[in-house]
Amino acid sequence: MLLDQINGPQDLKALTTAQLEQLAAEIRQFLIEKLSVTGGHLAPNLGVVELTLAMHYLFNSPDDKFIFDVGHQSYVHKILTGRKDRFDTLRKYKGLCGFVKRSESEHDVWEAGHSSTSLSAAMGMALARDLKGDSNRVVAVIGDGALTGGMALEALNHIGHEKKNLMVILNDNEMSIAPNVGALHHYLGKIRTDRHYQKAKDDLQQLLNKIPAIGGKLARTAERFKDSLKYLLVSGILFEQFGFTYLGPVDGHDLEQVLDIMKQADQVQGPVLVHVLTVKGKGYSPAEADSFKWHGITPYKIESGQVVKAVGPPVYTDVFGEMLIELAEKDERIIAVTPAMPGGSGLLKFAARFPNRMIDVGIAEQHAATMSAALAMEGLKPVFAVYSTFLQRAYDQVVHDICRQNLNVIFAIDRAGFVGPDGETHHGVYDISFLRHIPNLVIMMPKDENELRQMLKTAIDYNDGPIAVRYPRIAGLGVEMDPNPQALPIGTWETVREGESGVILAIGPMIQVAEEAAELLKREGLNVQIVNARFIKPLDEHMLLSLAAEGKNMIVLEEGSELGGFGSSVLEFYSLNGIYGLPVRIIGVPDLFVEHGTIKEQRHEIGLTAERVAAELKSMLPRRIKRVTGQQ
Amino acid sequence: MLLDQINGPQDLKALTTAQLEQLAAEIRQFLIEKLSVTGGHLAPNLGVVELTLAMHYLFNSPDDKFIFDVGHQSYVHKILTGRKDRFDTLRKYKGLCGFVKRSESEHDVWEAGHSSTSLSAAMGMALARDLKGDSNRVVAVIGDGALTGGMALEALNHIGHEKKNLMVILNDNEMSIAPNVGALHHYLGKIRTDRHYQKAKDDLQQLLNKIPAIGGKLARTAERFKDSLKYLLVSGILFEQFGFTYLGPVDGHDLEQVLDIMKQADQVQGPVLVHVLTVKGKGYSPAEADSFKWHGITPYKIESGQVVKAVGPPVYTDVFGEMLIELAEKDERIIAVTPAMPGGSGLLKFAARFPNRMIDVGIAEQHAATMSAALAMEGLKPVFAVYSTFLQRAYDQVVHDICRQNLNVIFAIDRAGFVGPDGETHHGVYDISFLRHIPNLVIMMPKDENELRQMLKTAIDYNDGPIAVRYPRIAGLGVEMDPNPQALPIGTWETVREGESGVILAIGPMIQVAEEAAELLKREGLNVQIVNARFIKPLDEHMLLSLAAEGKNMIVLEEGSELGGFGSSVLEFYSLNGIYGLPVRIIGVPDLFVEHGTIKEQRHEIGLTAERVAAELKSMLPRRIKRVTGQQ
Repeated sequence: MLLDQINGPQDLKALTTAQLEQLAAEIRQFLIEKLSVTGGHLAPNLGVVELTLAMHYLFNSPDDKFIFDVGHQSYVHKILTGRKDRFDTLRKYKGLCGFVKRSESEHDVWEAGHSSTSLSAAMGMALARDLKGDSNRVVAVIGDGALTGGMALEALNHIGHEKKNLMVILNDNEMSIAPNVGALHHYLGKIRTDRHYQKAKDDLQQLLNKIPAIGGKLARTAERFKDSLKYLLVSGILFEQFGFTYLGPVDGHDLEQVLDIMKQADQVQGPVLVHVLTVKGKGYSPAEADSFKWHGITPYKIESGQVVKAVGPPVYTDVFGEMLIELAEKDERIIAVTPAMPGGSGLLKFAARFPNRMIDVGIAEQHAATMSAALAMEGLKPVFAVYSTFLQRAYDQVVHDICRQNLNVIFAIDRAGFVGPDGETHHGVYDISFLRHIPNLVIMMPKDENELRQMLKTAIDYNDGPIAVRYPRIAGLGVEMDPNPQALPIGTWETVREGESGVILAIGPMIQVAEEAAELLKREGLNVQIVNARFIKPLDEHMLLSLAAEGKNMIVLEEGSELGGFGSSVLEFYSLNGIYGLPVRIIGVPDLFVEHGTIKEQRHEIGLTAERVAAELKSMLPRRIKRVTGQQ
Repeated sequence: MLLDQINGPQDLKALTTAQLEQLAAEIRQFLIEKLSVTGGHLAPNLGVVELTLAMHYLFNSPDDKFIFDVGHQSYVHKILTGRKDRFDTLRKYKGLCGFVKRSESEHDVWEAGHSSTSLSAAMGMALARDLKGDSNRVVAVIGDGALTGGMALEALNHIGHEKKNLMVILNDNEMSIAPNVGALHHYLGKIRTDRHYQKAKDDLQQLLNKIPAIGGKLARTAERFKDSLKYLLVSGILFEQFGFTYLGPVDGHDLEQVLDIMKQADQVQGPVLVHVLTVKGKGYSPAEADSFKWHGITPYKIESGQVVKAVGPPVYTDVFGEMLIELAEKDERIIAVTPAMPGGSGLLKFAARFPNRMIDVGIAEQHAATMSAALAMEGLKPVFAVYSTFLQRAYDQVVHDICRQNLNVIFAIDRAGFVGPDGETHHGVYDISFLRHIPNLVIMMPKDENELRQMLKTAIDYNDGPIAVRYPRIAGLGVEMDPNPQALPIGTWETVREGESGVILAIGPMIQVAEEAAELLKREGLNVQIVNARFIKPLDEHMLLSLAAEGKNMIVLEEGSELGGFGSSVLEFYSLNGIYGLPVRIIGVPDLFVEHGTIKEQRHEIGLTAERVAAELKSMLPRRIKRVTGQQ
C-alpha cells in the first residue's frame, strides 16, 4: 500500500502521476472502509480525492493556506496530513473531528461547519499576507452550492475589487446537500454542457480573421469581441465579471488534468478561479447513485450499501414533515420555505405532495427569512424550516423584517439543543438567547412528538405575528399521536408531575432528565413538581406568580445557553415584577463550545444529567427562604 | 403650484409629461425647503424624483406593490401619496417617519431601514401574487450600493431561477453612503461610461451582415454572437446571467426616457431590470457637489448650503477615529474594516493616513466579519467598525468564525443604545443580548470619551480572543483626555459614587442618568452607590460578591433590551452561584420597538429617566432583605 508510506504532504512530492492515481484509489478504499463503521460525510470526500491530492502535491501546506468551505470534505486532507490512523475515532467523543480542526494539525488553518465562509477567509489571509510582505499561496475550495450563500457573493465582489493573488477551486458537483436551485446553478450547468467550447472558439477565431480592418471603430469592436471570446464561449463570464481569471472546466477525477490546470492557475496574477467538475460519491456506486442520501451517512455494509436503519419512534423532523402535509391539505395558505435542506428538514414528502408550495432558495437563509416576511405580508402562511444553527445567519432578517413588522411567519427550528457528531459548529444551543429578546415573537418547544403536532397547529392558527417551534435532533418518545391535534393556549405551561419539595421548570427533552431526577429524589423521600414550560415566550406568568407564592426552590433546566436563555427569562420576570427573594437556579449549557460526540456525552460533559439536577435541588433545600414580593 | 393639487397618485394620471416635469421641479424645491428645517435624507430623495413620479404615473399603487430598498429614498413617494402636509414633522417624535411606514399609508407596503432587503421582499410578493392568482405588479427600487449586500445577491439568484414577473429599478448613483467598492461597482461603471453602446451595436450589426453563411456550425456561432450583442455592448451581462431581462441605462432625470423604459419593462415577461442613472442631490448644487455629506443632513441654510455645526464635546465616533490613528501609528498590525461606513464610523482620517490599512468592503457585514477573523488568524489586529444595528447582519459570523475560533478581532460598535430620528430600525438596543451569550467574547462600554480611549487601548493590548467596545451616538461629556491612556484590567468595574442606601449598576450614558437619580435621592436623604459596570462581559465577579455580601438593593440600568441584557447577566451570576435572596431590579428597554424621535424622547417613552430610577429604588427600600448565599 502506497498510503502506508504517506505520513505528511512531503511524502507525496516524489510520487509519479501514476503513483498518485494509485494513491487516489487507495484513499477511496480507505474512506469507504472506515466510514462504513463510523459513518460520516462519505460522498463529498470521495468527490475531492484528486483535487486534494493535487493541492498537497503541488503546493506547500501549512505555509500555503488551504481553506475548505464547510470543511466536511477535509477527510482526504486529514489522511494526507498524518491523521489516517485516527479515522476509527471519526466524529466520536474526543476523536477526530468531522470538520477542519486547528487543534488537530498545523495543516488545519481555518475551521468551519457553516457554508460559504471560505472566500472571506481567503481574502483576509491574502490581505494579511500582502500587508506582512509574505508570499504564501492562499487556496480556497468551495462547492457550487456554497456559492449561493450571500456572504460568498459579498466576498467574490470584494476579491474582484482588490485583485489579490488567491486561488479558488470551484468544486462543482451540481449538488450542495439537495440539488441546487438558482440562476447560479443554471449558469454552471451551461458551462458543464458546453462540451464544444474549444471548437467553437476556433471557429470564431477564423471568422474574425476573415474580417478586414474597416476603420478604427469597427476594428475596436472586433477586438473587443475577440477579448470576449472566452467569456462568451466558456461562459466564465460571471466570474470574469467579478474580476477573476477563470480556468476550466476540467474533469476533477482526471488527475493529470487537475494537476495541469492548478499549475496554470498558479501562474496567474490576481484572483483565479479553477472550475473542477467532480462527482459526489465517486468510486463507490451506491454513493454515486444517490449522493443526496450519501452526503452524510450512518454506518453501512460495503457490499450492499445497506444502511442500518434506526428502529423506534419517529424523529421530530419526520413528525414535523407529516404534520405539515396534514395542515397544508386543509389550508392552502401554507407554504414551506427551506434553505437547501428539504431532506434534513423532513420536507421531501411535502415537496412531492405540493410542489408549488415548497420553495427551496438554496443556501440563502437571509433571503429565505425576508422572502417569508413578504409572503406573510400578502396573507400566506410561510413555514420557514431551518436548523437552529443556520437560523443564526438570518438573525437580522428575523429582527428587522419579520418581528419588527410583526408578520405571521412560522419558524420550524430543527436541531435545537445538542446535535451530537457534527459538534460545536452545529449545536442549536443559542436560538433561545438570540430570539427571546426580539419583540412580537412567540417561541415554543414540545415535550414529545404529539405536542409538536399541537404546536404546529397552534402556529398555523395564530394570527398575531411570528411564532416559532423548536425541536431536537432525536427520536420522539413513542407517545400516542392525536389524529386531530388542537391548538394550545398561548403562554400556558403544564405541570407534568406534582410534588412539594421543589419544582423543575424544563423544556423539551429536558423534561425526561427532570423526570429521571425526580425518580432519584423520590428514593430519598423528596417529591418534586415538574413543569413543561412549553412556551419559552411568552412565559406563563400566572404559573410563575403561583410558584412564587408557594416559595418553592426552583430549577430551570434547558439544553441551551445559560446566558440569556430560558432560565434568564424566569429570573427577569421576577426582577421586573419586583419579586426578589426566590431561590431559582439555572442549569443549562455554560459559556463554552462543546465538541463532537454523542448527545448523551455532550450533556454529560456539561452536567445536563439527572444526577446533577437532583444534587442541585437537594443542595438548595436547606436554603429555602421566604420570598419577598414587590407591589403588583 | 401643481403640487398643491396632488393628493394621491390618481391626481398624476391626467398630467402631461411637461406638467410632470414641472411637478418634479416643485417637488425638488419642496424637499430642499422642508429638509432645511428638519434635516433628513436629502441627496437620495433628490435623486429619485423622476423615477418615483414615473412609477406613480404609470402604475397603480397600492394594488401594485412598490418596495423601496432601505426606504430613506421614499420621501417623494410620501409627497405623492397624501403626506406632503406632514413634512414639518419629518423624523420627529410622533411625526412622519424617515422610512417607509405601513401605519402611515396604504401605499407603504414594505418597511426597511437596513439595506438589501427589497429583492427578497419583491420575490415573496411575486410568489404570493401568483399563488393567489392575482395580477398586480411588483416593483422594487434598489441602489447600486445595496446590491453588494449578500442577501440581495441571494435574492437575485433565486429570482433568476423562478422567473416570476417582477420589476427591479436599479437606481445607480454610484454611491451607497460612501463610494462603493467592489467588482459590482466596477461593472456598473463600465456601463455608465459606455456612451457609444448604441453606435457600436449598429456597427457590429453591419459587420455580421457582411459575413456569408459558411456552413451550419459557423452560422450558429455568428448567431450566438448576435444574440449576445446586447450583453456584450451594454454589458448587462451580469443581470442577464442571473436570468433578468436587462433594460437601460437611461438618464434618470430625463422623465421621457424614464417613462419610456418603464413602459417597455412593463411588457417584459419574467424578471426585468431597469437601469436608471441618477445623480444624488440632483437640483441642489451643494448636495450634488458633496452627496456623501448630504446623504443624511442636519438643518442647513438653503442659500449657502451651510450646515449648523454642533458645538461642544466631540462625539464618541470621532474620539474613536482619532484614537485608532494614534494606536495605528505605533502598531502596524492594526487594520480598520468597515462595511461601507467610513464616514459614519469616524474613519475618514484614518483612511487618509493609512490607505492600505483601511478596508471598505461595501455593504457586506458578513464578509467583513469573517474576513476580519482571517486577518486576526494571520496575526493582524482587525478593528471591525460597525453600527450596533448592522452588526445584526453578522451574528452568525461573530459566533461561528470569530468567537468559536477565539480570534483577536476588535469590534468597535457604534450607535449603541437609542439613535434618535432614524428610529426603530436603527437602535442599538439588542447587541448586548445577541452578543453576551457567545463564548470567548469580552464586551466593554465606556462611561465617557476618555474611557473610550482606554478601552481601545485595552482592546489592542488584549491577545486572548475577540473583544468589543460599544459606544453611543452622542457627544462625550467634555472630560479631560489622557494623552497616554492605559489598558483597563479585564472584568473590573469602578464605583463612581459612594452611598449606602442602594446601588445602581449602570453602563455608558446611563451612568449620567444614575447620577441624576442619585441627586434626586440625595434631596431625600438617601445616598446611593453608582458602579460603572464598564465590562459587560466578563462581569466583575469580585464586586458582585461584595455587593451581595452588603445586601444592598440593586438597580441594573442599561439602554438596551431588558431581555437577555446586562441586567440578566447580573441575575444569572447570582443564580449560577447559588446566591438567591438579593433584590435586583432591571431597568432597560422593554420588549417593544421604539419609534423615531430624539434620544431623550425615546428614553422618556420607556422610562429610562432619573425620576423613574429614583422612584424604583425608593420603592425597593422597605423590602430590603437579608441575602441568602449558597456554597461558594
